[in-house]
Amino acid sequence: MSKRLTPRSQDYSKWYHELIIKANLAESSAVRGCMIIKPNGFSIWEKMQAQLDQMFKNTGHQNAYFPLFVPKSLFEAEEKNAEGFAKECAIVTHYRLKNNPNAEGKLMVDPQSKLEEELIVRPTSEAIIWNTYKNWIQSYRDLPILLNQWSNVVRWEMRTRLFLRTSEFLWQEGHTAHATKQEALNEAQLMNEIYAEFVEKHMAIPVLQGTKSENEKFAGAETTYCIEALMQDGKALQAGTSHFLGQNFAKAFDVKFATKSGNLDYVWATSWGVSTRLMGALVMTHGDDYGLVLPPNLAPIQVVIIPIYKNDQEFQNITKVANNLMNRFSKKQYRISYDDKQNHKPGYKFHQYELQGVPLRISIGPRDLKHNQVEVSYRLTLEKEIIPMNQLVDYVEKKLTSMQNEMYQKALKFQTNNTTNVNSFGEFEKILNDKGGFVLAHWDGTSETEQKIQAKTKASIRCIPKNQVLEEGKCILTGKASKGRVVFARAY
Amino acid sequence: MSKRLTPRSQDYSKWYHELIIKANLAESSAVRGCMIIKPNGFSIWEKMQAQLDQMFKNTGHQNAYFPLFVPKSLFEAEEKNAEGFAKECAIVTHYRLKNNPNAEGKLMVDPQSKLEEELIVRPTSEAIIWNTYKNWIQSYRDLPILLNQWSNVVRWEMRTRLFLRTSEFLWQEGHTAHATKQEALNEAQLMNEIYAEFVEKHMAIPVLQGTKSENEKFAGAETTYCIEALMQDGKALQAGTSHFLGQNFAKAFDVKFATKSGNLDYVWATSWGVSTRLMGALVMTHGDDYGLVLPPNLAPIQVVIIPIYKNDQEFQNITKVANNLMNRFSKKQYRISYDDKQNHKPGYKFHQYELQGVPLRISIGPRDLKHNQVEVSYRLTLEKEIIPMNQLVDYVEKKLTSMQNEMYQKALKFQTNNTTNVNSFGEFEKILNDKGGFVLAHWDGTSETEQKIQAKTKASIRCIPKNQVLEEGKCILTGKASKGRVVFARAY
Repeated sequence: MSKRLTPRSQDYSKWYHELIIKANLAESSAVRGCMIIKPNGFSIWEKMQAQLDQMFKNTGHQNAYFPLFVPKSLFEAEEKNAEGFAKECAIVTHYRLKNNPNAEGKLMVDPQSKLEEELIVRPTSEAIIWNTYKNWIQSYRDLPILLNQWSNVVRWEMRTRLFLRTSEFLWQEGHTAHATKQEALNEAQLMNEIYAEFVEKHMAIPVLQGTKSENEKFAGAETTYCIEALMQDGKALQAGTSHFLGQNFAKAFDVKFATKSGNLDYVWATSWGVSTRLMGALVMTHGDDYGLVLPPNLAPIQVVIIPIYKNDQEFQNITKVANNLMNRFSKKQYRISYDDKQNHKPGYKFHQYELQGVPLRISIGPRDLKHNQVEVSYRLTLEKEIIPMNQLVDYVEKKLTSMQNEMYQKALKFQTNNTTNVNSFGEFEKILNDKGGFVLAHWDGTSETEQKIQAKTKASIRCIPKNQVLEEGKCILTGKASKGRVVFARAY
Repeated sequence: MSKRLTPRSQDYSKWYHELIIKANLAESSAVRGCMIIKPNGFSIWEKMQAQLDQMFKNTGHQNAYFPLFVPKSLFEAEEKNAEGFAKECAIVTHYRLKNNPNAEGKLMVDPQSKLEEELIVRPTSEAIIWNTYKNWIQSYRDLPILLNQWSNVVRWEMRTRLFLRTSEFLWQEGHTAHATKQEALNEAQLMNEIYAEFVEKHMAIPVLQGTKSENEKFAGAETTYCIEALMQDGKALQAGTSHFLGQNFAKAFDVKFATKSGNLDYVWATSWGVSTRLMGALVMTHGDDYGLVLPPNLAPIQVVIIPIYKNDQEFQNITKVANNLMNRFSKKQYRISYDDKQNHKPGYKFHQYELQGVPLRISIGPRDLKHNQVEVSYRLTLEKEIIPMNQLVDYVEKKLTSMQNEMYQKALKFQTNNTTNVNSFGEFEKILNDKGGFVLAHWDGTSETEQKIQAKTKASIRCIPKNQVLEEGKCILTGKASKGRVVFARAY
């Protein structure tokens, strides 16, 4: 691969893959469809986790951990859920290897170790969790249960793409149990709000909130709430979902509780999740032809200092100043790093930190020391400024704050410019092909029509918007009556 | 189950299990050998994780994530490692379920989805990681690599016990690569020091540091360093291990690098891990007949306030004071909780927080308000004191600090009192049977003798102590010459 990334305009998909590889975010592994998340990528994910975890805890949720495996008999209990995931399950059938008598030093599955009941590697944990909740819930006093778990899940994928679609991925899955339908509905909506807040405020990615159509909702859900983001190539990306599960899992696992009035009722449920897929959204929303651009709130390194020197004396003088700066910034809780590695030239380092998306780069050379100044490079615009040393802390503080907002506004402008109302199928197809983006159109509300539109255009209904404008209209395909537009797009 | 725990003196094993269930730390699941870590347990594990993670990062390590699955051909590459884990592997053989034509609504493994190569659910990740490092390491400039991952692993166990031995458990596994043998040795020793520091300072559990015998070392290691703790029933528990892996994995996966002088050499490796087993150590070291006792450093709740009231007016007056206290303590970074739940009586709450091991319990009633005082109960001794309100913050601060140390000293005293030097096999057996604990004895250094001793007494060599005193002696079994005592014990 050349030093430069393939420009987005030339091949967006290639650009995405190259960026992830060159910025050392992730790579493919020897296991089909499974990725390795490298330290540069994982440290961003850790920042996301920490922020989300805090938001979950602030809203009364606690973490727990449930088994990786789901016995087949539990897996199949909620039929729609089982049907939705059956075709993409990794299945454990044996528990022992033995020496292969026909190949020295090789192992083989010991046929004697066949399990009586196969174990499914969890693609999602509703089944194992609701089988547990059954034992935890007897009375309304035991409710609500508000749990989350951070875990790995496996969904066997034939076509994979780093972060966006991998056979194993990391995520969090919230699973809550409630005494009333309204409470469960509120919870599902609250978590979708929290996802929207996280993605907008911390990832600087604007999203549309809404509900999924019957076709697109989670297998086993009554209603799926979602947040949808728009990538730079005009394709949509589902960034998070929360599900009102009704009493489906309670019925499948026979989870009843004594109500306050002394009756028995099935428990109401929600589940909600976001995954390492968000890393893909981050790259595709903010990346440019030089690499990743990280919103300061999630940047593992917000400011990097790079020394420029010709000899050891210069290096030592710069290091003294750099250490002093490090100290001052750390006290203000900024994440700052001094790259004094001697085995790479400044040009190489500049390139690397641009690739990795570090918001601000400070370079210090002998001339800067003499004039009591530094050069600051701003990753978002790649502009450079000379800043007097005594203004630096203020400058950085302001710049990091404004950058977070600038990134959001830039992405929002893109989203706005790429959201189009259309009134006919011809217009619909033309916009999808010429421009992409979110296309708002009238739809007759049937799955049949949705599927036909998707077959013809590869565009699906991303959501029925939360604040849908009520207006009389006609379905772009069938001409039947519609009371409001829904959001179509081609999607990841 | 009765309200009371079975006393330790009556049945230690039963006490352990009951404590874990009643304190809501964990429970068994529908999946053979796999546990559910409940919020009370998981929140302690989160505190451990956060502290360890910080210590790893402070020593230059970064987190990453490698796949859950290991293809069989990679798994078997390092023969000793493979042999060590082959008999306890969960094996994925298929990737799809289909409808069972003979049973309506049931699923079956789709025989068409058989994998060409079986996947092992990782029991440990050396194989998948060294197969990756192969691509990452060309030159000495690429070294060292200092990575850690937090993950779940599976080792099929026939006899399981919550936290101590489960088929799936959570852990961290560090995997480092180095240019020289000395560097790798230093790393393995450093990480063992860090484990010792964590367990002693944060978990308040004294440990012995040392190395494992050939018999007991990690499959694939040259040297295994370990920390060993002593439980209240006189049995030892291996609390953490770090391994100097030599060039074994580099050779198995052909990982060579260009040295500074331009030669090619195999890379040197370490790996190190601690797991949710530490939760078991925490319970068994500090628990008493009333439940868990948590060291303040790891207690998710350090102080709980419980209101005692007869009517709503009293409740409101107390709540005002409690909220004020909450504020003052939170500012000082203490983790404090006000349990104002109306559906349980104070006596029930007292019992629950004792079970959960909350270090300090403050109860406030109308009489306390009148006299401007509170009652504080100290979990370690169950003593109660009346503390004037204006001295409370100071009191709590001092008590939490002294408690951490008191707990350590108490455990250290137990360890010292239960560490015995013996000089004959008769004495060895008698101490093991009468008293248990660490038994220091001379050993001739052979695996054969070690195995014979274990067969006769069920005691194994826990470690060859780091600061072994050199003294001439005779092996307690064979009478052969020995240059220093090693530590025997019956162990978990």
